[in-house]
Amino acid sequence: MVNVIEFAGGQAGPWRVTRIDTPVGDGLPGAARLSVGLGGDEVANEASPSPGTTWRLRGAISNLRYATRDEVVRLRTAQPPLDRPDATCAALIPIKKSARWWELAQDERRAIFEESSQHTKIGLGYLPAVARRLHHSRDLGEPFDFLTWFEFAPEHEDAFEALVAALRATPEWAFVEREVDIRLTRDAAG
Amino acid sequence: MVNVIEFAGGQAGPWRVTRIDTPVGDGLPGAARLSVGLGGDEVANEASPSPGTTWRLRGAISNLRYATRDEVVRLRTAQPPLDRPDATCAALIPIKKSARWWELAQDERRAIFEESSQHTKIGLGYLPAVARRLHHSRDLGEPFDFLTWFEFAPEHEDAFEALVAALRATPEWAFVEREVDIRLTRDAAG
Repeated sequence: MVNVIEFAGGQAGPWRVTRIDTPVGDGLPGAARLSVGLGGDEVANEASPSPGTTWRLRGAISNLRYATRDEVVRLRTAQPPLDRPDATCAALIPIKKSARWWELAQDERRAIFEESSQHTKIGLGYLPAVARRLHHSRDLGEPFDFLTWFEFAPEHEDAFEALVAALRATPEWAFVEREVDIRLTRDAAG
Repeated sequence: MVNVIEFAGGQAGPWRVTRIDTPVGDGLPGAARLSVGLGGDEVANEASPSPGTTWRLRGAISNLRYATRDEVVRLRTAQPPLDRPDATCAALIPIKKSARWWELAQDERRAIFEESSQHTKIGLGYLPAVARRLHHSRDLGEPFDFLTWFEFAPEHEDAFEALVAALRATPEWAFVEREVDIRLTRDAAG
């Protein structure tokens, strides 16, 4: 069974929103806090969400779509878990890719994703500083295709900015038609 | 926006169930008729489904996950649309693949899917007789990973049996841990 995760922006949740930027396309309504939880149908359609919720985004934790075995091994070896006590900074970056991207064949998408844009290779350069979890939203009929969640310690904020800038400069990003960048902090775990 | 389609087995719908086989794993409850419709969250969670509905399966019409550009071109050139007036036979084949399949990397899954099992190549051999639409269910938290819908004229029933038998004999099918095969007919369009 695949887990569907829901990110809810509003007045509740452990994460404090510090900034919402919209690099391309329509933005999201303002939110002061973010909560992260399980988001099955029964949750997403419940009659009474948290008061003050201004948006809810859902995505499924699913299989990797482009990584080769060699890349999977390198990722699994290097990537840290979520919820590290010192990782008090986070980012939620929902993106939507264009119809032109989705009409490409698998080999064409793979070639842009890795051979020309080096998406996995760039990400590997920021491990283990930046923990990451990808959520697939497109098949759920959501407004975005992907929700990527990142966690890192405050001393790695510059590294995270460099990672995001490097990805946005790739040929792959020419297919991104909507992107919102939500930055967050929480109190350090006791 | 991706379309989510719902298949509902029970007492209602234009398709009459002629046979339900279960090649592997758990079966589905009996059903006399099948309906096919849009299946967004609001539909799937509505309070009053058709009386007599015994099961509902949902899947998203999504992008191809393995086909190369060359294969996509050959598929799009040869594949017929659904709803042909003489295509009064149909099959709905829900399958679930094993955890071992989903843990494979993309290049490993592609190699099994096409280089060793020739999934696309086998299917191309039965075009344009058999129309087909694939629905992705795994990210929706459904009990099956895929729902494949086929339509064909009665004179192509033997060809369809050969197609299904050829696919079940592939190395890819060793990863199928649940499969139900629902055969249907409807009256010819006026």
